[in-house]
Amino acid sequence: MRKVGITETVLRDAHQSLIATRMRTEEMLPIVEQLDDIGYHSLEAWGGATFDACLRFLDEDPWDRLRKIKAKAKKTPLQMLLRGQNLLGYKHYADDVVEYFVQKAIANGMDIIRIFDAMNDPRNIETAIKACIKEGGHAQACISYTTSPVHSLDLFAKDAKILEGMGAHSICIKDMAGLLKPYDAYNLIKAIKESVKIPVQLHTHYTSGVASMTYLKAIEAGVDVVDTAISPLALGTSQPATEPLVASLQDTEYDTGLDLMKLSDIAEYFRPFREKWIESGLLDPKMLGVDANALIYQVPGGMLSNLVSQLKQSNAVDKLDEVLKEVPRVREDFGFPPLVTPSSQIVGTQSVFNVLMGERYKMVPKESRGVVKGEYGKSPAPISEEISKKILGDEKPITCRPADLIEPELDKIREEIKDMIEQEEDVLSYALLPQVAKAFFKKRKDGTLNQTPLEPAPKKAEPAKEQFDEEDD
Amino acid sequence: MRKVGITETVLRDAHQSLIATRMRTEEMLPIVEQLDDIGYHSLEAWGGATFDACLRFLDEDPWDRLRKIKAKAKKTPLQMLLRGQNLLGYKHYADDVVEYFVQKAIANGMDIIRIFDAMNDPRNIETAIKACIKEGGHAQACISYTTSPVHSLDLFAKDAKILEGMGAHSICIKDMAGLLKPYDAYNLIKAIKESVKIPVQLHTHYTSGVASMTYLKAIEAGVDVVDTAISPLALGTSQPATEPLVASLQDTEYDTGLDLMKLSDIAEYFRPFREKWIESGLLDPKMLGVDANALIYQVPGGMLSNLVSQLKQSNAVDKLDEVLKEVPRVREDFGFPPLVTPSSQIVGTQSVFNVLMGERYKMVPKESRGVVKGEYGKSPAPISEEISKKILGDEKPITCRPADLIEPELDKIREEIKDMIEQEEDVLSYALLPQVAKAFFKKRKDGTLNQTPLEPAPKKAEPAKEQFDEEDD
Ligand SMILES: [Co+2]
Ligand SMILES: [Co+2]
Repeated sequence: MRKVGITETVLRDAHQSLIATRMRTEEMLPIVEQLDDIGYHSLEAWGGATFDACLRFLDEDPWDRLRKIKAKAKKTPLQMLLRGQNLLGYKHYADDVVEYFVQKAIANGMDIIRIFDAMNDPRNIETAIKACIKEGGHAQACISYTTSPVHSLDLFAKDAKILEGMGAHSICIKDMAGLLKPYDAYNLIKAIKESVKIPVQLHTHYTSGVASMTYLKAIEAGVDVVDTAISPLALGTSQPATEPLVASLQDTEYDTGLDLMKLSDIAEYFRPFREKWIESGLLDPKMLGVDANALIYQVPGGMLSNLVSQLKQSNAVDKLDEVLKEVPRVREDFGFPPLVTPSSQIVGTQSVFNVLMGERYKMVPKESRGVVKGEYGKSPAPISEEISKKILGDEKPITCRPADLIEPELDKIREEIKDMIEQEEDVLSYALLPQVAKAFFKKRKDGTLNQTPLEPAPKKAEPAKEQFDEEDD
Repeated sequence: MRKVGITETVLRDAHQSLIATRMRTEEMLPIVEQLDDIGYHSLEAWGGATFDACLRFLDEDPWDRLRKIKAKAKKTPLQMLLRGQNLLGYKHYADDVVEYFVQKAIANGMDIIRIFDAMNDPRNIETAIKACIKEGGHAQACISYTTSPVHSLDLFAKDAKILEGMGAHSICIKDMAGLLKPYDAYNLIKAIKESVKIPVQLHTHYTSGVASMTYLKAIEAGVDVVDTAISPLALGTSQPATEPLVASLQDTEYDTGLDLMKLSDIAEYFRPFREKWIESGLLDPKMLGVDANALIYQVPGGMLSNLVSQLKQSNAVDKLDEVLKEVPRVREDFGFPPLVTPSSQIVGTQSVFNVLMGERYKMVPKESRGVVKGEYGKSPAPISEEISKKILGDEKPITCRPADLIEPELDKIREEIKDMIEQEEDVLSYALLPQVAKAFFKKRKDGTLNQTPLEPAPKKAEPAKEQFDEEDD
């Protein structure tokens, strides 16, 4: 009997998606041993936005969190999300930083590293994959799911093959916006399973309301593992709920083997947190609803609301339809990048400008130039001479891997921060988020960290502007 | 291409399930024409608890609501839920009342009458079916879904065949507690489709989190119509959301043919209501969560919380496990009735008594006696001599249809209330809910009806005790 594996996301993506990554280590630790006892394929417990949130909002050392969770989860592989060459930050880092980060993540207890790139450029995840393999970790390579005229089953299958060729131990189809519909998932998983020999995992969000059905069809198509969240932190912008899927598969050929009674105890633990967070406003019930507009426009929910708010600022909400028609045209011009952070904002903003100016590419933000120039990596389809010329003028696009242009930087960084570090890992925290880490180090030294355990929850989630507010891992 | 039909429940079950049936006619009317324009198989808009709620809480005439909705929904069949011989009340009524009620429902605009009985005793729905057929309505006969050793695919298929034989135009599998899991739904629908020629519809609730998946597998098995709610009033104790299912089936052989853009407009209309109701406390976010315990214990969520609260009152919450083991034994003794109102309360209370007394059936409430005596109809399996003797003593059970023992009552009722009626339908309101209707008539006469439109929403839903608070239609 083929057992379907379950990755539980409650310690990472679920709270990242519902409560702006505000779950504290103290809130996690009392239940980790029970989570460890469930028999999950893995526990997603680190990475994504949690690293930044620990340092920036929670006054916690993310490395310390990792070690504490590991100490209580001795049986279940821990899993993290890594943004390829961006690691857990917001720009490309030098290879020596990437390699050292992966080494330290594994040394501190990480088992499975899920690695993705917003452009689906395999070169942007290769260094992390190789480093993970070298350190004895499980390297899971991602394909960001999107729809476009070039994103055929063939293209996805070929991408998967390339990642397998790089040595990835498994493939993850990562659908951060919940755009993947059930029967499309069936065909996609079939195509990828035929293309590669390594296991295939599916990650999606409930945002548009199709995700549970999508998992069911993906499972019928042979997917090996899916990501779910225990019910009190499931649905809405988070993952499908764990228990209903486990119950649905029970006594079928897809049985997960997980015990519903034990899962019920886990849910029991988190239910009061859910209530507390709703009470305090940290969990907005709007996050728990279904927003099917993403399925209509094939753009992530977060991008859609950004477009609306940009248009509102210009008193031009009536132009929304026009902008929504412009989005696929800009995407085409930019080589059909997946619509994930940061490309979703870049394409969205450019589309708004094109419509509001009454002339396409009259105004071009530097991020748009960056995409066309190749600073984020290679786009899925080539960018035409015409667009390249229009946007870059005489400047030549780069064709190498963006990080090839970055000198090794670890030594310099270490030198800069040497007076403040208390552990080797601090060098990496500083490398990724210099200001944020420095502020944390200072408070740590002064003994002014405010790690109030369990209570009170922040009154309203106020994620930092720009960099932080539309993470859709 | 076989089109799957969608029944939209937003005007009935969705708000009954989420906001204690408090949606006002004034809140419905502005969107009815647009709903009518979608192309739904039907619009569930009346019956269930709405009749009582109109008169009891909203100071509205339910008949007037029906006429007003009908005036704006000229194309889409209207649908209602009828509790068999209980109509929209809480006891068995005489056949003349049942027949007159059905006649008036159809005369006022009803097209499809969904008729169920809590015991699944076909005799309890036969009068209503025949009356519906006679008046030219569509008679949909229900099978209440439940699990037990006697509830095999064979039994359900046979029950469906009996209902078809009575002249029902379609069959509905009614899973009020969300117990039906996807692969079980597949097998069940297959079995019923093989047993009958008439269309088969599936009704379930999202409560336990499996419902969307259940619809998908039911559709693959050939179900003709499913019940969904527009997203702002979907999930939790309500139905699965309409839009994700429509999107999922698009461009497949199961396409519903509905337009997602138009559905998006409907969602837009209801979204502010959702927010208002959450704000005012009428919609408790707890209702929006997933409760998988129903799947573990195979009892409805409402019954489970009733058991807990009964045990709390006796300071015996630690006996919950014991009670949960007693429930299937009591069900067996009582002939495996489906666990729906009122049998869920009766079986639950009896189980609590059996455990707390330390001796089974030492204390037997009159409702338990009623079940064993046959006052609610014939149970799915026979009740043993031993149990019958133990509970009824020398009293003999009745074997006829319960309503056979009720004399015609319409003339008497009409006589009683003749001074207060303003329309023929008032006789029926009074027949079903004498006190409630009388109070309504009085306010209507005095001009003191409080039909405050749209605002304010009741601060907290406080359904009337006993009869009203665990309706799980
Ligand atoms: Co995610
Ligand atoms: Co219902």
